[in-house]
Amino acid sequence: MSHRQAIAQQWMEEALNEAKLAQSKGEVPIGAIVVHRGSTISRAHNLVESLNDATAHAEILALRKAASALGRWRLQDCSLIVTLEPCSMCLAAARLSRIDEIIFGALDERFGSVGRPRDLSKDPLWGPTPRLLGGVCSDKSLELMQSFFKELRGRSKNSPSE
Amino acid sequence: MSHRQAIAQQWMEEALNEAKLAQSKGEVPIGAIVVHRGSTISRAHNLVESLNDATAHAEILALRKAASALGRWRLQDCSLIVTLEPCSMCLAAARLSRIDEIIFGALDERFGSVGRPRDLSKDPLWGPTPRLLGGVCSDKSLELMQSFFKELRGRSKNSPSE
Repeated sequence: MSHRQAIAQQWMEEALNEAKLAQSKGEVPIGAIVVHRGSTISRAHNLVESLNDATAHAEILALRKAASALGRWRLQDCSLIVTLEPCSMCLAAARLSRIDEIIFGALDERFGSVGRPRDLSKDPLWGPTPRLLGGVCSDKSLELMQSFFKELRGRSKNSPSE
Repeated sequence: MSHRQAIAQQWMEEALNEAKLAQSKGEVPIGAIVVHRGSTISRAHNLVESLNDATAHAEILALRKAASALGRWRLQDCSLIVTLEPCSMCLAAARLSRIDEIIFGALDERFGSVGRPRDLSKDPLWGPTPRLLGGVCSDKSLELMQSFFKELRGRSKNSPSE
């Protein structure tokens, strides 16, 4: 394993802890952190239901907290680490923030925007493209997602009136 | 002019007023409103610099306020009206919010995501596609944008040390 891969896994463990916090609140278990020069400067997890805000994805919240921590919205020397492949909203937000590097876990075949079914990560009109590293600890991320949706399906089966 | 076009222009005037508020704060002049069953339920303008937040586009702020006003993040019976063609972040946010209709002003040839250079508005994986109406009062929107960037260039020319 390369040094970069080892560091990425270590950061992803922090993001996975955030995903577990989301899960404990009944939210889709996705977590994200932002790292600046080796230090974690923000941590966040999906809060769409809790905040009643469709834009409250882990990445958006982590980017906003990071900007607040650094006192600037340009995060060109930062890495965004997220447990699931970012959707178009979050990928665009990372690029608007000038994020230098995006490290993600499992692929998202419906909303993902870094590989298939669409790839916005290299769109040249948006300026410099971020470095990408995908598939980091993807099994752990997938396991969290699958158990969440399995439980959700079980709940709706037992409560047909909901 | 069709009835829909006339209503759209009336709503766009409200969004243009928001864009002017952005301009008065030194922000890129973009404004947005959300309309629910004929009533404006949220108004917002670009606040990236003021809030120090790369995600504080007019549309994101208007969607969040609308969700707060209705007490739900699903805005399937709402229209989003914005003075400029939405970028990928904002278009995805509108689709995640299940926005029914997007009405926009001028085209954005760099960041726009509804026509060229990219079109995310009809991506079938995201579920039902919003109705679209572009080019509404686009001259007024363009005029605001052009005068803003002209002034910005003038300022940076007169202050080479900035």
